[in-house]
Amino acid sequence: MCGIVGVYSEDARIVPKLVFYSLFSLQHRGQESAGIASFGGEDFKVVKGMGLVTDVFKNVDFEKLKGKVAVGHVRYSTTGESVVENAQPFVVKTRAGSIAIAHNGNLVNFFELRNKLERDGSVFISTTDSEVIAQLLSRLLIKMDLEDAIIELTKILKGSYSLVFAVNDTLVAMRDPFAFRPLCFGEFDGGVVFASESCALDTIGAKFVRDLKPGEAIIVRDGEVESIKVESEREAHCVFEYIYFARPDSTIDGRNVYSVRYKIGQILAEEAGVEADIVSPIPDSGTTSAIGFAERSGIKYIEALIKNRYVGRTFIMPEQKLREISVRLKMNVLKENVKGKRVVLVDDSIVRGTTSRKIVDMIRKAGAKEVHFRVGSPPIISPCHYGIDMQTTEELIASKKTIEEIRREIGADSLAYLSLEGLIKAIGMRKDRLCLACLTRDYPVKGEFCFRC
Amino acid sequence: MCGIVGVYSEDARIVPKLVFYSLFSLQHRGQESAGIASFGGEDFKVVKGMGLVTDVFKNVDFEKLKGKVAVGHVRYSTTGESVVENAQPFVVKTRAGSIAIAHNGNLVNFFELRNKLERDGSVFISTTDSEVIAQLLSRLLIKMDLEDAIIELTKILKGSYSLVFAVNDTLVAMRDPFAFRPLCFGEFDGGVVFASESCALDTIGAKFVRDLKPGEAIIVRDGEVESIKVESEREAHCVFEYIYFARPDSTIDGRNVYSVRYKIGQILAEEAGVEADIVSPIPDSGTTSAIGFAERSGIKYIEALIKNRYVGRTFIMPEQKLREISVRLKMNVLKENVKGKRVVLVDDSIVRGTTSRKIVDMIRKAGAKEVHFRVGSPPIISPCHYGIDMQTTEELIASKKTIEEIRREIGADSLAYLSLEGLIKAIGMRKDRLCLACLTRDYPVKGEFCFRC
Amino acid sequence: MCGIVGVYSEDARIVPKLVFYSLFSLQHRGQESAGIASFGGEDFKVVKGMGLVTDVFKNVDFEKLKGKVAVGHVRYSTTGESVVENAQPFVVKTRAGSIAIAHNGNLVNFFELRNKLERDGSVFISTTDSEVIAQLLSRLLIKMDLEDAIIELTKILKGSYSLVFAVNDTLVAMRDPFAFRPLCFGEFDGGVVFASESCALDTIGAKFVRDLKPGEAIIVRDGEVESIKVESEREAHCVFEYIYFARPDSTIDGRNVYSVRYKIGQILAEEAGVEADIVSPIPDSGTTSAIGFAERSGIKYIEALIKNRYVGRTFIMPEQKLREISVRLKMNVLKENVKGKRVVLVDDSIVRGTTSRKIVDMIRKAGAKEVHFRVGSPPIISPCHYGIDMQTTEELIASKKTIEEIRREIGADSLAYLSLEGLIKAIGMRKDRLCLACLTRDYPVKGEFCFRC
Amino acid sequence: MCGIVGVYSEDARIVPKLVFYSLFSLQHRGQESAGIASFGGEDFKVVKGMGLVTDVFKNVDFEKLKGKVAVGHVRYSTTGESVVENAQPFVVKTRAGSIAIAHNGNLVNFFELRNKLERDGSVFISTTDSEVIAQLLSRLLIKMDLEDAIIELTKILKGSYSLVFAVNDTLVAMRDPFAFRPLCFGEFDGGVVFASESCALDTIGAKFVRDLKPGEAIIVRDGEVESIKVESEREAHCVFEYIYFARPDSTIDGRNVYSVRYKIGQILAEEAGVEADIVSPIPDSGTTSAIGFAERSGIKYIEALIKNRYVGRTFIMPEQKLREISVRLKMNVLKENVKGKRVVLVDDSIVRGTTSRKIVDMIRKAGAKEVHFRVGSPPIISPCHYGIDMQTTEELIASKKTIEEIRREIGADSLAYLSLEGLIKAIGMRKDRLCLACLTRDYPVKGEFCFRC
Repeated sequence: MCGIVGVYSEDARIVPKLVFYSLFSLQHRGQESAGIASFGGEDFKVVKGMGLVTDVFKNVDFEKLKGKVAVGHVRYSTTGESVVENAQPFVVKTRAGSIAIAHNGNLVNFFELRNKLERDGSVFISTTDSEVIAQLLSRLLIKMDLEDAIIELTKILKGSYSLVFAVNDTLVAMRDPFAFRPLCFGEFDGGVVFASESCALDTIGAKFVRDLKPGEAIIVRDGEVESIKVESEREAHCVFEYIYFARPDSTIDGRNVYSVRYKIGQILAEEAGVEADIVSPIPDSGTTSAIGFAERSGIKYIEALIKNRYVGRTFIMPEQKLREISVRLKMNVLKENVKGKRVVLVDDSIVRGTTSRKIVDMIRKAGAKEVHFRVGSPPIISPCHYGIDMQTTEELIASKKTIEEIRREIGADSLAYLSLEGLIKAIGMRKDRLCLACLTRDYPVKGEFCFRC
Repeated sequence: MCGIVGVYSEDARIVPKLVFYSLFSLQHRGQESAGIASFGGEDFKVVKGMGLVTDVFKNVDFEKLKGKVAVGHVRYSTTGESVVENAQPFVVKTRAGSIAIAHNGNLVNFFELRNKLERDGSVFISTTDSEVIAQLLSRLLIKMDLEDAIIELTKILKGSYSLVFAVNDTLVAMRDPFAFRPLCFGEFDGGVVFASESCALDTIGAKFVRDLKPGEAIIVRDGEVESIKVESEREAHCVFEYIYFARPDSTIDGRNVYSVRYKIGQILAEEAGVEADIVSPIPDSGTTSAIGFAERSGIKYIEALIKNRYVGRTFIMPEQKLREISVRLKMNVLKENVKGKRVVLVDDSIVRGTTSRKIVDMIRKAGAKEVHFRVGSPPIISPCHYGIDMQTTEELIASKKTIEEIRREIGADSLAYLSLEGLIKAIGMRKDRLCLACLTRDYPVKGEFCFRC
Repeated sequence: MCGIVGVYSEDARIVPKLVFYSLFSLQHRGQESAGIASFGGEDFKVVKGMGLVTDVFKNVDFEKLKGKVAVGHVRYSTTGESVVENAQPFVVKTRAGSIAIAHNGNLVNFFELRNKLERDGSVFISTTDSEVIAQLLSRLLIKMDLEDAIIELTKILKGSYSLVFAVNDTLVAMRDPFAFRPLCFGEFDGGVVFASESCALDTIGAKFVRDLKPGEAIIVRDGEVESIKVESEREAHCVFEYIYFARPDSTIDGRNVYSVRYKIGQILAEEAGVEADIVSPIPDSGTTSAIGFAERSGIKYIEALIKNRYVGRTFIMPEQKLREISVRLKMNVLKENVKGKRVVLVDDSIVRGTTSRKIVDMIRKAGAKEVHFRVGSPPIISPCHYGIDMQTTEELIASKKTIEEIRREIGADSLAYLSLEGLIKAIGMRKDRLCLACLTRDYPVKGEFCFRC
Repeated sequence: MCGIVGVYSEDARIVPKLVFYSLFSLQHRGQESAGIASFGGEDFKVVKGMGLVTDVFKNVDFEKLKGKVAVGHVRYSTTGESVVENAQPFVVKTRAGSIAIAHNGNLVNFFELRNKLERDGSVFISTTDSEVIAQLLSRLLIKMDLEDAIIELTKILKGSYSLVFAVNDTLVAMRDPFAFRPLCFGEFDGGVVFASESCALDTIGAKFVRDLKPGEAIIVRDGEVESIKVESEREAHCVFEYIYFARPDSTIDGRNVYSVRYKIGQILAEEAGVEADIVSPIPDSGTTSAIGFAERSGIKYIEALIKNRYVGRTFIMPEQKLREISVRLKMNVLKENVKGKRVVLVDDSIVRGTTSRKIVDMIRKAGAKEVHFRVGSPPIISPCHYGIDMQTTEELIASKKTIEEIRREIGADSLAYLSLEGLIKAIGMRKDRLCLACLTRDYPVKGEFCFRC
C-alpha cells in the first residue's frame, strides 16, 4: 500500500516537479510519509518526511532537487513503526554508484534474505523491503551488469514488488512475475514516466503507453528505453486494487477501475436485489457501485450520508461524554432523505464491521424503515500477504462469522455480498490471472508472512 | 463567509473540545484561520492561528482552555490581507469585563462606525467588523446593562451579522433583523450551543432547538436562557447558502440544504431538458443537483469527473511546461464514461467561467460527442454586500455577457441557468423573505460596500 | 528590563536590518520576546514573537519589512504572563495615523490610567504599559499636534519610561523627567538611531551624539530632528544599570559601565581588603569588579570558575538524583586554581543568596582553604518600582537578614558589601542625581507598585 | 572536532538524561548536530538532529529514551556537507545485534577501508568514519567475540579515533594507540560514564577515574568493567586540545587545560616581553593566557574587548553598507580602557589572520597608542589530519608568510608567537608523547588526507 513514481527527462528542472505532482495524484496510496530522490549529477539529493506530500514539500526549494532522473514514493503506515527511517526512497552509496529505490509490495522471503545478507556482513538501517532489495542489487552489480543483475534479482525476490529505482542516472522500473501490484509506463515530450497508476500520467499530461508486463523491467539510459523480461508462470493481479484501493480514474491492466466498480454494483443488484425506496453509498468507497446498483435495480439513487471533506485530518480527544463523536466527525446522515424510507446501503467491503454497525445505527435513528446492506466484494476471510494492509485474520469479521451473524452484528435488515463469480465477471479477466487470496485463502506465492509495505 | 460557534456547559473540560469539533464541522465556511477563546474564570484564554482547525489546534493542550463558556471561529480569506491580526475570536479587556467575539457577515456602515469610534478616542488593532462591534459593545456596556446594550447595538449596526460573543462567562448569540446569515441554537445534556449551521449540532450530538429569529438575541447566564428581540421589517435569507455555501446536511430556516439542491436539479431538468446519454456533476458542488436532474429527466446518472480528495492542499509551481496542470491536479475525466456520449454537466453556479471552460474542454478531449452545461442558479450579476466573497462586478462573467456569449466562451453545445422562479420554488420560501441581491441587484440594506468578513 | 530601538533613514531597505542588529546587541536586556514594526508607507508591518532576536527573525524576509522608519523591542519576562500578546512594539491604528510603540520602564500610575481610559470607552488587548501609553497618545493626538501631545503625555505618565515610537513615519524618542532608564541618540550617514544603550550604536557603526536629557523628546520628521523638553525636578538615574544590567561597553549619562565596575572593585578592595592568595569573579557578572579588586589589592587575579558558554539555553529535568545539577550546568570549579588557596570571590550583588551558597560550597569542596565573599553593591533591601525585576521584598535576603546572618547562610569565611558612598564615588555622579531606591527605600516617585515591564 | 559520551546504569530512566547533560557540557566540541541513541531492550531509540543539544532535545520525551545504556554525540561541521544523514550516533542493525556508535577523530585510511567494504558488498548511507567503523565491527563480530573484534579493529583502523559504542546493551569505549583525541572514564553511584572531557564528569557529578590509555578499550557488560589493550608504539596527544579546543576546566592526560594556558601566558611573557600599559585578551580564547601574561610581566590586566554573549546565533544580511558589521556583532572595544594606551593583545593562535587584522584596527581606531600582538602557540603551518578542522594549507597564513609579513598584514606594532619549546614546557609532557604535526609537519601516522570528522 504505497505509491511509486520515476521520471526521466533532459529538462532537469521539471523532473522533481513532475515527480511531486505524480505523488500528489497517488496520495490515496499512502499518507504516512513521502519522499523524492533526484540524481543531481554526483549524488542523490533526497527530501523525505512524515505526512502528506504537500506537507513534506511545503518549503522545499525544487531548484535544489533538479536532476534528469528522480524517483518518488508515498508510504502507507502498516503494522510496523511509523518512523522516518522507514520513509522512502531508500538511498545508498555503493561500489556501482548511488542507488535510490522506491518499492510497493511485500516480499515473503524478507527475513530469509535479510538473514543471509547479515551473515555476509551487511548492516541495516531500516526494516523495509527496499533496503533489502537495495543491498541485494548492490551486491549483484559488483559481479555483473545491470541487465543480468535485474534478471538475477527476479530469481531471488519472492512475493509482490513493483519497483522504481535509479542507479545514478539510469532509471529502472520493474514488476514481479505475478504482477501483483500495478505499474505503468508513460511518455511525454522528451521524457519517460513510471507510476503506480495511470491517473498520475493524466495529471502530468503524459501519454499512457502500457502497463509493465509480468516479470518485465524497463531500463531508461540517456533517454534510450530497453525492456527485459523473465518468464512468468502465472499472473496474479490484485483484485483489491479494483475493489477499493486504486483511484477510479485509473486503468490497470486494461480495466478501468470506475467501470469495474460500476459493474460490481450492477451485478450486485442482479444477485442480491431487494425491494427498497432508495439506494445510497457509504461515501466515498461505495459511491460508484451504488450508482451501478441503482441503475440496474431501478431504485432511486440519492445520498443518505454526507462525508466531511476535511476528515482524515482531525484528532479525537479522550473524554467519556465525547466517545461517540468519531463517526459523526466523518459523516452525517441526511435525515430528510432516509426518514420513513427503505434504504439500500452499498459499500465496497466490510473489514471489521464496527463502522458499518455505527452507520446502520445512525441511519435507523434518523428514521429509516429498513436498512439493507450490500457489499461490492465477497467476504474477506484472510489477510493479504502481498502489500494490502487488511488486519490480521482474527480482526476480519468474515473469517469467523457467517453472513447471518455479521448481519445481526451490524444490525441490518438484510446483508448480501457479491459472489466470487460476480467479481471476476465485473473485472472481466480470467480467474487464473487474478490474486484472490484474501477471498479464497489460495495464495499464489507461499512464504513466511510478515507485513511491512 | 465564516463559521461561528459558542458553547456553555457547567462541565468546563468539555466546552473547548465541543467548540473544536463544531469548528471542524464548519471548516467549509473558512479555511484561512481558526480560533477558540475560552473564559477560564478570570480572563479568556485564546488560541488562534492561520490554517485549518486541525493545524491550529494540533499541539494545543485543551486542559488549558477549559472554561464554562467558549466561542470559536473559522475565517475565510477575502480581499483583505491574510494576517493573524484578523483571526478571530477577537478578545478585549474592557470596563465591563473581557469580551470575546466571533462574527459572520459584513457591516455596510463599517467605515462610518470606525471613524466615529476613532474620533471618540478608540484605537484599532485589526481591520475586522468584530473589533468595531467589540468596541461599540464595550462603550454601550459602560452606560447600560447587557440587554439594553444588545438592543442599542442592533440600532447601530447596518448590514449582515450573525454573532456569538461572551462577556466574561455570559454567552450571547444574535442575528441581524434581516437574518442574512444563518445561526442556530441547540441543547445537549447540561449545555447550550450556538453554531452557524445545524451540522455542527449533529456532530457533537446536540439537539437542534431552532434557528435564531431575525433580530433575536439569546443570552445564556449561568445556564439560564433568555431571548430578546428587536422588530424586523423584512427577512432576507441568503440564497447562496442553499445554492453553494452551506453543508448539504444542514437545515437552515426550516429548509434542508440537500433537499433544496435536489429540487434545483429537478426543476432545472424541467426547465431546461435536453436529449443526452448521461448526466454528470462538476464535483463536489454540482453533485446533488445532478442527481436530482437525472431523476427528473430519466437520463442515466454516472460520474464524468473524479476529484482528487487531497486537493486544496497543493501548490502549483511556475514552469512553462506545467502551466495546464492546475485543473488536472483537481480533477480527472473518466474517459470510458464520456467517450462517444452526449453529456449533461451540472454545476451549482458560474462565477468567472474559466474553470467551466477548462472542464468542458477536458470532457471533449476525452471523446464526448456533445457537452450540455446546466447551472443550478440564475446568473450571478452583482457582488454580495453581506458576507459572501464573489469577486467584483467586472469579474462576474454574467454581469457583462449574455448566456449565448457565455456558452461560446465555455465551449458548451448548450447552456441553461435555473430561473429565479425555479430557485424560489426549490427553496420553498416567499420571495420577499430572501436576499436575491446577487441575482437581481436589489439590495435589502443600502450602504457603502466594503467587503471584509 | 527591556531594550528599545528606533531608526530613521531614507534608505528603506537597511532600516529594519539596522533595528535587527541593534536589538541583537541589546539582547541582554530581554530574552523573552522580540519584535520590529516598520512603517512601509501605508501601515506598519510587524514581526514579533517569543524567544531570542535571532529565533524570532530566523525566517523573516527583511524585504517585506522595509520602510524609512522602524522601531524594535526586546522584552524580559517578569512576574506577568509570558504571552505573545504582550510582545512589543505595540501597534494600533488611530485617527491620527498608525502608532507603533516600544517601551522600557514601569508606570506607577498604570491602573489609574487604564481605569480612566476604560471609563472613557477604551478596550485593551494586553496588560502592558505600552498599550496604555498608545491609547493616551492617540486620544491626545485627536485634540492637538504631536509636540503638544508629547508635553501633555509627560504630565500624565508617572514612573519610569524610556520610549521610542512612530506615528506613521514620524519617529519619536522620549525619556521621563527623572531619566530612570537609559536612552541615547546617534547618527549615521543619512540616518538617525535611538537605542537603550550606546553599544547598539557601536554595533551598527553609528556615531553617538548624546543621551536624551531628563524630560526630553526628540522628534524626527523627514530627516529633520527637533528636540522638546519638559522641566525636570530632579534626575534619578538607575544605579543598577551600572551595577549589573547594562553592557560594560555602553556609556550611560557620561559614565562608561566597565569603568564604573572596575572602580567598584577598586573601592571594594580599599573598603574591605582581606589577606588572600587569589581574587576570582563569579562569572560573568563579577568579572570587571574582580579585576579592579585584584589591581587595587595586589592579590593575584585568576579564575576559580568557568561558565558554560551555552548556558541559558538548557532545561533541567526533574529527577531525584539529578537535583544538584543546575549549578554545575552553569559553571564548574577550576580545582587546580583554588586547591589550598585563600580565595576572594567577587560578585556584583546578592539577591536571594541561594546561588552564592552553592558556589561557595563548590569552591570549598574543591579544596579552598578560605572563601571571602565581596559584593560590588550595597545590600539590596527593597524592590525596584521602575523597571528592574528584583523579586519581592521577602525574597531579598538583605531585606530581613544582617550581613553576619547572610555570611553564615552562604557559608563564607567573610562577607563584605560595597558602601553606598563607595558606589556613588565609583559612578561619579552627585547622589541626588541617582535612583538608589532598592538600596535605601527612598523612592523618587511614589505610586502604586505593580511590576510589569 | 566532536564530543562523545557513553553512560551505563541500572537506573534506565536517568541514563539518557545523564548523556544529555554531558553533551551539554561538551557543546563547545560541536554545534552542528547532536544525538543520543539509547538501548531500550530490543533496539536503539535514536533522537538526532541539526543544531545545539538544547534545540535538538527541546521537545523530546526522555521517558521514551530510557535504557540502561546510551551513547551521545555532538558534531562540528567541517568541509563535508552539513546533512542530517551525517549526524551521529550512527545506528545499524546487524547479525551481532544493533550497534550505536559515536566517534571523534579522523581515519586516514577511510577511502581504502570503504572501498574494500564496498567490494565486499557493503552499501553506505553517510560519508562518516562512524559508518565505516560500524560496518567493519559488524563483519568482525560475525567471526569472533567482542574482545577479539576490538583488537582486530585496532589493527585495521589508521588515524585518530576515540570511540564510544554499544552493541545492544554492552557499552565500549576505546582510544587509538596514539591517543590523539581525549577520552576519559568516570564512575557514579551505580554507573559508568565515558566522555571526551572530564568537565562532563564534573557536570553530572561523576568521579573521574582515569583517562583511557593509548590503545585501550574498556568494556562494560551488566555493570562489569573489563579493560583490554593493544601495544602502543608511541603516544601523540593533540596539543591543540590544550591550546584552544578543550574546556579550561577539563584535565586531559593529567594536565589541567586552564593551568597549561596560564603557563603559556607566563612563558610568552618571558619569551616575548614588551613595554606596555595594559594586557588584554581576545575573548574568550585568549583570556587565560592573557591573565598569565599579565601576572608574569607585571603589566596591568584589563579588558579591551567585550564579547556579545549571544554571538554564534546571529545571521548577517548582505547589504553594501552593512558589510563591516560582522566583527562588531561579535565584539566591541572598551574605548576608555585603550585610549592613549600601549596595548598587549593575547590570543591563543592565528589561523587566517583576517579577524586579527579587524580587531587590531578596532583597537587602534579607539585610540590605542600601540598594539602588540602575542600568540599563545607557535605558528600553525600545516593542517591537522587527526580531527581538528583548521583550513587547508593555503588558508593558513603562517604556512606562506614570515612573522614580519604577518605582523604587517594584521597591522600590529609587534607580533610574537610562543616557541615550540615554550609550548612543550607549558604542557609539561615529553615532546615525543605529543602530536605537533600542525606546527612541525611531522605527522605521527601517514595516510591519505581527507578531513571529515
